[in-house]
Amino acid sequence: MNISITKTAAPKQKPDQSHLGFGIHFTDHMFIMDYTEGKGWHDARIVPYGPMAVDPSAMALHYGQAIFEGLKAYRTANGEILLFRPEKNMQRVNNSNRLLCIPEINVDDCVQAIKELVKVDAYWIPSAPGTSLYIRPFIFASEPALGVRPAHSYQFVIILSPVGAYYKEGINPVKIYVESNYVRAVRGGLGEAKTVANYAASLKAQVEAKEQGYTQVLWLDGVEKKYVEEVGTMNVFFKINGEVVTPALTGTILPGITRMSTIELLKKAGVPVSERKITIQEIYDAHAAGKLEEAFGTGTAAVISPIGEFSWNGNVIKVNDGKIGEVSQRVYDTITGIQSGELEDTFGWIQKL
Amino acid sequence: MNISITKTAAPKQKPDQSHLGFGIHFTDHMFIMDYTEGKGWHDARIVPYGPMAVDPSAMALHYGQAIFEGLKAYRTANGEILLFRPEKNMQRVNNSNRLLCIPEINVDDCVQAIKELVKVDAYWIPSAPGTSLYIRPFIFASEPALGVRPAHSYQFVIILSPVGAYYKEGINPVKIYVESNYVRAVRGGLGEAKTVANYAASLKAQVEAKEQGYTQVLWLDGVEKKYVEEVGTMNVFFKINGEVVTPALTGTILPGITRMSTIELLKKAGVPVSERKITIQEIYDAHAAGKLEEAFGTGTAAVISPIGEFSWNGNVIKVNDGKIGEVSQRVYDTITGIQSGELEDTFGWIQKL
Repeated sequence: MNISITKTAAPKQKPDQSHLGFGIHFTDHMFIMDYTEGKGWHDARIVPYGPMAVDPSAMALHYGQAIFEGLKAYRTANGEILLFRPEKNMQRVNNSNRLLCIPEINVDDCVQAIKELVKVDAYWIPSAPGTSLYIRPFIFASEPALGVRPAHSYQFVIILSPVGAYYKEGINPVKIYVESNYVRAVRGGLGEAKTVANYAASLKAQVEAKEQGYTQVLWLDGVEKKYVEEVGTMNVFFKINGEVVTPALTGTILPGITRMSTIELLKKAGVPVSERKITIQEIYDAHAAGKLEEAFGTGTAAVISPIGEFSWNGNVIKVNDGKIGEVSQRVYDTITGIQSGELEDTFGWIQKL
Repeated sequence: MNISITKTAAPKQKPDQSHLGFGIHFTDHMFIMDYTEGKGWHDARIVPYGPMAVDPSAMALHYGQAIFEGLKAYRTANGEILLFRPEKNMQRVNNSNRLLCIPEINVDDCVQAIKELVKVDAYWIPSAPGTSLYIRPFIFASEPALGVRPAHSYQFVIILSPVGAYYKEGINPVKIYVESNYVRAVRGGLGEAKTVANYAASLKAQVEAKEQGYTQVLWLDGVEKKYVEEVGTMNVFFKINGEVVTPALTGTILPGITRMSTIELLKKAGVPVSERKITIQEIYDAHAAGKLEEAFGTGTAAVISPIGEFSWNGNVIKVNDGKIGEVSQRVYDTITGIQSGELEDTFGWIQKL
């Protein structure tokens, strides 16, 4: 794919690496590509980061026809730039696109677009331990028309944000509120797409959980309010009696790339792992029997987020005395080690720029 | 509320009134108001219609924190401009806002904003029979930040589109596909909000129904796939053995303003009407017993859309021989008569500009 590059005439001041936060600062450039019906994806370009001219009737603003991705670029100790499984994110774009009636992208072209943009803004990749460059590709329906139907024109955009270390003072397991009222997604809905609707549906539950002192919610299935789905914006794993279990991909949860990597890593390490339906009752029963050994979320932002406590309809249980478990720590160390280039990548996950 | 007005220097060519379509043409101006945390809603202004400068990280494009409304202005035979229950739409904005964690608006201020904007673009209101000026207020999270949480800044925008007669050659009842696979919204979700997520979730079912020759889908509840919810983007009514029934507002369907008006109108006319749970099986049983007399959708675009046929898991039934029913016709004639100023408004629904 031919990508035209227009460099900014006014580079921004880079933020202090010790106070990056998440998704607050953006780099000097962005990638844009247009889709027009009959013409396909065209006009791939890297341009200075800045506001886009969006028609007030752009369909994404009205009917939510939009999807996104999230991945990271890492700078190694010797200055190399690494990407973690970017092809998986771009493949997932097409899964999301199919559910949202958005025209598919060319996976290789879009991985190339990520690489070119990261190269142009390589200067922005932070190097302090735990920091990285968050990459946010997204597609939105840009056609200026009102009427509920798939749009005829779209934009594919990639923006970059230098982000801070998720855990600044060691990993602190989080408290999770098991959500019995609100539903994120249901069978026959958009749960397995990385699309705006699922995040909009999560806001109110998240706000109410925070007000009660919880970090995230654990979503249950929308039909029976019985099966465990995801935790906040992460996939969820449990270690019960020596076996690691995680909800199967039945269409209502996001097929996470950190989830996939965790499963592959555990299998290679000989840890029993299974993807299946898990009821919240089973988790509580395992705890009562002294067999709930660990619980953790997986996602791009934190990689591994250990869970120290659950609250379900007023019943509170502690996991592993509120401390990070051995498997959680090992998965965290291995994946972040491979991502930062400190550990050898025996999986073929890393792409060097 | 003080609204500043900046008129366009380059008015557009008005489209031919006989080929307006829906949501294709937009007028010369739009209303914009900003929300900033700590400052509230501010800077109400009418400005020339045109692209907005939207940051690529604007939260609405990523997390779907956005809601909208739809209503119409009508030009009467003697040149007056009428609005139909605009306060109900602005009250519904706040219902939607609460579910989406968007700060509430002032209902009176926003009705005023609609009126001011319609006055500025009054020249655009078409006068041919059945035509009107569609009014689209919407709010979107404009804060430039990535991170799943309610935004700290928003824009409230109103745009206007002259729209054609929905029924050009008499009312033709539509064929409806009863959706047993995809789900629009579920208990605990966003179904009763007029928000982008619900429309995104409807696209694929709609495309597949069209491919099979159906105009719209009839949504069933997401839990049991048993109860009738909405039809396409409209509320749905049935006349069974002399009684008009419509699904109760249990949180998963849109509280339609045409729905509300239809119920009020039927009650005043002495037609038995009830809001309750209705199974799709009940509709089919009523048909088999010769008691399904009419079926119709209600919404702002078509007002009344009679249903001539249902297909549920391959079982096809015809309603009233595929013709519009007497009650459907009467509701249509009364509401459109009041909207156009041809019938006296005995309900207090109309606001004159």
